[in-house]
Amino acid sequence: MSDDLCFRPATELAALLRTREISARELLDAHLTRIERLDPGVNAVVTLDAEGARAAADAADAALAAGRPVGPLHGLPIAHKDTHATGGMRTTWGSPLHADTVPERDELVVARSVAAGAIRVGKTNVPEFAAGSHTFNPLFGATHNPYRHGLSAGGSSGGAAAALAAGFVPLAEGSDMGGSLRNPAAFCNVVGLRPTPGRVPTWPAPMAWSQLSVQGPMGRTVADVALQLSVLAGPDRRVPISLADDPAGFVAPLLERLDGLRVAWAPDLGGRVTVDPAITAVLAPSVGVLESLGATVEEACPDLSGADEVFGTLRAWLFDSSFSDLAARHPDQVKESIRWNAAKGAALTGRDLARTEQLHTTLYERMVTFFERYDVLLAPTTQVLPFPVEIEYPTEIAGVHQDNYLEWMRSCTVISATGCPALSVPGGFTEDGLPVGLQIIGAPRADRRVLEVGHAFEQATRFGERRPAL
Amino acid sequence: MSDDLCFRPATELAALLRTREISARELLDAHLTRIERLDPGVNAVVTLDAEGARAAADAADAALAAGRPVGPLHGLPIAHKDTHATGGMRTTWGSPLHADTVPERDELVVARSVAAGAIRVGKTNVPEFAAGSHTFNPLFGATHNPYRHGLSAGGSSGGAAAALAAGFVPLAEGSDMGGSLRNPAAFCNVVGLRPTPGRVPTWPAPMAWSQLSVQGPMGRTVADVALQLSVLAGPDRRVPISLADDPAGFVAPLLERLDGLRVAWAPDLGGRVTVDPAITAVLAPSVGVLESLGATVEEACPDLSGADEVFGTLRAWLFDSSFSDLAARHPDQVKESIRWNAAKGAALTGRDLARTEQLHTTLYERMVTFFERYDVLLAPTTQVLPFPVEIEYPTEIAGVHQDNYLEWMRSCTVISATGCPALSVPGGFTEDGLPVGLQIIGAPRADRRVLEVGHAFEQATRFGERRPAL
Repeated sequence: MSDDLCFRPATELAALLRTREISARELLDAHLTRIERLDPGVNAVVTLDAEGARAAADAADAALAAGRPVGPLHGLPIAHKDTHATGGMRTTWGSPLHADTVPERDELVVARSVAAGAIRVGKTNVPEFAAGSHTFNPLFGATHNPYRHGLSAGGSSGGAAAALAAGFVPLAEGSDMGGSLRNPAAFCNVVGLRPTPGRVPTWPAPMAWSQLSVQGPMGRTVADVALQLSVLAGPDRRVPISLADDPAGFVAPLLERLDGLRVAWAPDLGGRVTVDPAITAVLAPSVGVLESLGATVEEACPDLSGADEVFGTLRAWLFDSSFSDLAARHPDQVKESIRWNAAKGAALTGRDLARTEQLHTTLYERMVTFFERYDVLLAPTTQVLPFPVEIEYPTEIAGVHQDNYLEWMRSCTVISATGCPALSVPGGFTEDGLPVGLQIIGAPRADRRVLEVGHAFEQATRFGERRPAL
Repeated sequence: MSDDLCFRPATELAALLRTREISARELLDAHLTRIERLDPGVNAVVTLDAEGARAAADAADAALAAGRPVGPLHGLPIAHKDTHATGGMRTTWGSPLHADTVPERDELVVARSVAAGAIRVGKTNVPEFAAGSHTFNPLFGATHNPYRHGLSAGGSSGGAAAALAAGFVPLAEGSDMGGSLRNPAAFCNVVGLRPTPGRVPTWPAPMAWSQLSVQGPMGRTVADVALQLSVLAGPDRRVPISLADDPAGFVAPLLERLDGLRVAWAPDLGGRVTVDPAITAVLAPSVGVLESLGATVEEACPDLSGADEVFGTLRAWLFDSSFSDLAARHPDQVKESIRWNAAKGAALTGRDLARTEQLHTTLYERMVTFFERYDVLLAPTTQVLPFPVEIEYPTEIAGVHQDNYLEWMRSCTVISATGCPALSVPGGFTEDGLPVGLQIIGAPRADRRVLEVGHAFEQATRFGERRPAL
């Protein structure tokens, strides 16, 4: 029973809590028990605040009992990415340099969940400084894939995805520069949304106008992701790029039919990326399901020229300003891939960035034009299946050499460069039971649209309901 | 009578046109007559399309007669800044290199006016490539100030401001990187709004996320500016920074009282800029008028640290990418101040730009915090009075040397760096009859608020009603 509770959708649990069929404390204890029992084999939750969580859950129950108004996430346990500042709760960035860092205040994305009634249970594992799509670091080691111990949970929001898949929390949030909400969702058979930049305002942020890294929700169902988005989204006056739309719109009932929807399917993003044939073999039939829902599906891909340069240059630029000083002061405590990326950024000129912004602009315009012809673009979320945790990153895909720790993530990074929202939903399983993610990409600001398509696909396929054997 | 028609507010003319008390053709002819008679002494309108305008006016009259729906600017003559592409109408940028350039299509800001029913009469003069706040160029020479022949009309939207002040058009639009909508409005006793970036989407634009240069409306009254803004504003899916708010909100009736409004007055922006004492002498008593409308006014200024570096670096960066190649190919046909600015940009590193974006971010946050304590910030629009047209730019203010062609514009450029909307309204006249502009600055996205304050101030002072003696 208590384990069953841990796999109910957050939307369902929210209703049970509000009607007091279950208490926040009861729900929390069920999850804490599961974490204590099973996380040693997964390593998803690297900081646990059982005490604080119990106190918060009791307070939530008392508030409801007293008839005080409660928020949309009332009583739902949530785990936060360990790169997101949690007030009074250790936040390490997966780096020994922050082994004992305890922020004073919650950053905005955490504060919004708490304000909506969610119960902070702890922090989810990340790669060192969230760099790369495989979750391991010198402080806590690697997070294992709940579907196969010994394999990667993906990253950088790998702890979040694994915690959801393992039934440790009904909600988790993460961030996504080059796939960090999508890649782990795909590896762990859960749902991750990279929203349109500005949809979920990031505060504080060192560069307020940056479009590359965004924060967003993760869950086991699309409706759960929509519920969390309705709390995380909405304008913040301190964030100049924040979108003003009313976030309540994200919880309106999601479509189950897709009549007339025009779908483009790009199995290898127009020949731009190498994809493990096992992934294509799983997704091709899954995509066909959309036709049974009324959509028309054709193979098509926008012209993504410049996307690699835009992503590579902007990422290097951000890494230089975030990590070069740190790497200089502690060369032995910052991993090589970060030092490589930061050094790349240190060499950039103003003209490199001007050229990048011009490419960024033309790429954005081509996407807008493409989405006049198609409502959504489908692609594989990842180019590879979950790989052994010991490997730092895949250096070969289907016989094609991958140059660096970003190459194998290009199915996500090129989409990050476009400014489009992208949702990863469970897309099926390989013959030997490994999950595969389907990436649903929409026009800029069409976050609601990708959720609708993801929900209809999920309802028709139910791949997300296959639980890991833990 | 016909001259009187040329000084009526656009809002009033729009009503007369809609009720057919006057025809678009009649209104156009009155303005064309005035342009032909008086523009030789002003040089505001450098390209006139009388033929095309008459055809458009006749078509507008026919449409209304036929009972077809007409837009909010139905039949109103408008002149476009000569840096804005007008389809089939010469667009020179004030450069000999574009003496014969005729764009194929209207750019968005022009297309929106035309779609709303405005009649394109021609193009307004600009400095070469709109660089600098004094309107002169090798193609057309200098624009004179309608209030004193021989003095500057300001710039870079100098032709627009002069055309409005001289009664050549009831509406004109411009753009503002470092004051180009505010400085000429101040010099010519009209109203110019630098909107929040994204309020008036610029398309096409080489760098879609740039916050520095914005397009916006100019008029003789705040209500006219609000009317035009209601047509120029609103999202465009091709423009990622465009703000989604319904632009219709800008024409809602504007306040006449300011009870409880908290006003900060910064006569020299906290000691940051040198201002001609004659300007302070005019504005100090004018600002007091707001108290009679119910506002509380105190001397206060936000911390604008970093604003000069943000503006200087971003401007140089944009100038390098826009003009360095051009200047290399035609060194003798690009003015020295542009070559200087572009060369400055060519030397920038990626780290310079990262540092700039960080300063930009902290400056934005300080403004947001300041506007929690105050509803608007008032400052002089310009540091100097209109100066002789022969002078390229003022090199001294009240005995203080100005280093370059940007220094004397800092009362506007530092505000451009903040991301805040800023309105210049007629603020009074010097003893010898020269106009002075009052700059009303609001929190980011509070464009409506600065219009409300400007309207109430205008109604109480009526400085804008003093006509030039032409």
